[in-house]
Amino acid sequence: MISVHIENGAAFVRHATMPKPKPGFVLIRLRAAGICNTDIELLRGYCGFRGRPGHEFVGDVAGPADSAWLGKRVVGEINLACGACEWCARGLGRHCPTRTVLGIVRHPGAFAEFLTLPESNLHEVPRQVSDEHAIFTEPIAAACEILDQVKIAKGAAVAVLGDGKLGLLVAQVLACRGASVHLFGHHPKKLRIAALAGCETSASGNLPQARFDVTVEATGAAEGLSSAISMTRPRGVVVMKTTVHEPVPLNTAQAVVNEISLIGSRCGRFEPALRLLKSGRLRLDEMISAEYALEQAPEAFAKAQEKGVLKVLIRPGA
Amino acid sequence: MISVHIENGAAFVRHATMPKPKPGFVLIRLRAAGICNTDIELLRGYCGFRGRPGHEFVGDVAGPADSAWLGKRVVGEINLACGACEWCARGLGRHCPTRTVLGIVRHPGAFAEFLTLPESNLHEVPRQVSDEHAIFTEPIAAACEILDQVKIAKGAAVAVLGDGKLGLLVAQVLACRGASVHLFGHHPKKLRIAALAGCETSASGNLPQARFDVTVEATGAAEGLSSAISMTRPRGVVVMKTTVHEPVPLNTAQAVVNEISLIGSRCGRFEPALRLLKSGRLRLDEMISAEYALEQAPEAFAKAQEKGVLKVLIRPGA
Repeated sequence: MISVHIENGAAFVRHATMPKPKPGFVLIRLRAAGICNTDIELLRGYCGFRGRPGHEFVGDVAGPADSAWLGKRVVGEINLACGACEWCARGLGRHCPTRTVLGIVRHPGAFAEFLTLPESNLHEVPRQVSDEHAIFTEPIAAACEILDQVKIAKGAAVAVLGDGKLGLLVAQVLACRGASVHLFGHHPKKLRIAALAGCETSASGNLPQARFDVTVEATGAAEGLSSAISMTRPRGVVVMKTTVHEPVPLNTAQAVVNEISLIGSRCGRFEPALRLLKSGRLRLDEMISAEYALEQAPEAFAKAQEKGVLKVLIRPGA
Repeated sequence: MISVHIENGAAFVRHATMPKPKPGFVLIRLRAAGICNTDIELLRGYCGFRGRPGHEFVGDVAGPADSAWLGKRVVGEINLACGACEWCARGLGRHCPTRTVLGIVRHPGAFAEFLTLPESNLHEVPRQVSDEHAIFTEPIAAACEILDQVKIAKGAAVAVLGDGKLGLLVAQVLACRGASVHLFGHHPKKLRIAALAGCETSASGNLPQARFDVTVEATGAAEGLSSAISMTRPRGVVVMKTTVHEPVPLNTAQAVVNEISLIGSRCGRFEPALRLLKSGRLRLDEMISAEYALEQAPEAFAKAQEKGVLKVLIRPGA
């Protein structure tokens, strides 16, 4: 089968052997996949990654023949947990200390004609949700995770800092929950998507001070966190979505004096994401910048790194 | 009256005019005061401070003659709030944006024979509580603030990082609440106080990783926060008590991936602190290192800056 391999900063298209699902796993035939910023970081060598990336996907279960999932169109949670530890018992396999992660940590990713995942990771995609929208399930779940971590009242003043893919999804998800969302970013085109979704938007040059109940930092840059703290009211919450791999210089005194909470936030549950997708309330078509065949993966990765580009799709076959 | 003045890194004893309480304020005759690390920072020039420090005190209300507080032995909350803004309406005058702060921000402090405070800041000291213990009310309230911000279950694994005055009080307060507290510090003598109060203790050389539900960072040093994050379990809480006035280099990726919450924590309510003091359950006598007359304030400040010294008391008259 055709698959994508990353090594030494470059993406290659390769022929690979078909994966064989272990007991409890299924074989999934890829329908579509999306390139995430994490994939770009992996390409650039984050954690010395070498292998097959891809964790945003939708596909059809193609085996084993006796699986109850056979033939179903599915998305899948990316953390492969042990199922036995205390985290797994609490439904938090996302924090299982021995987990592998699809396309990121020791489990081959979705950028291939076929992939495998445990049945327990699967969610059937409602028929109302297109393949193009289904690939957003994982990042929407990451946005929904905020709602599991922070109480956000209807009408709460929420700032989202950063108009990249995650920032745009976070802004839309929180606006759907009734928050009064203000997105700050650099790209008029991207800000317009949030405006269509009912958010206030501003260029991030001149940020207000101590104004917001909750600020979500999704800039992807080290400097974002200090700005987020400054924008947040005393006793407010800063949600940290950016993972930079360098020490971030932080004015902690401001956070201590104003008793601000900084909450690390990563992956989320798929259920609320699929409910939102089914509702059709998110502006996602505007967030798809380009589409490539699996064989064009190197071009797709190049495109995904261009300025102003949002989601790049990959599809097998042509 | 005799008062203490700080300017250009030095403490002076001065004669000052008696303060006149504004309407709603009382005049308090000092019984005893304590030197806090913040006072030492003010001495060293934090925020360009120049004036009369002191915010940990106990005293007798000496006027006006028609005050219902006259003759009572009191401690006082240090934030002087406007009483009218939304923060004040929520009982959070500690975050009132126009507040002044006793001995810190534009209100002369307690290191003098007399001071003034609004009646609304006062709390009567229970007769069971000595003057020497009463001066701990404010820092104990700062420790109790953690209980208002974070749910700490009975038996929860709590680490306190730093065996200074605040670390020792935090460890004791959380142990009284039923948490399983482990204090990490550098000074065998100080660790022994926490051990007497029922805490486990260790030298802070070799810190455990991802072990604690809650870690309180009270080292007073910039490097403490990264250690605190490493010691905390996924989805755990780090309470930030240190206010350093330089950017703190932070590995935010670890906090994001493990979804750790960092909670800024400052002053607290006096009620739970006074209840704890009245209970007699805290080891405070061991935390008093020295006592000076108000006239010896420069010596008292020098002593408070010596290594291994805990609370230094100041008393008017001799």
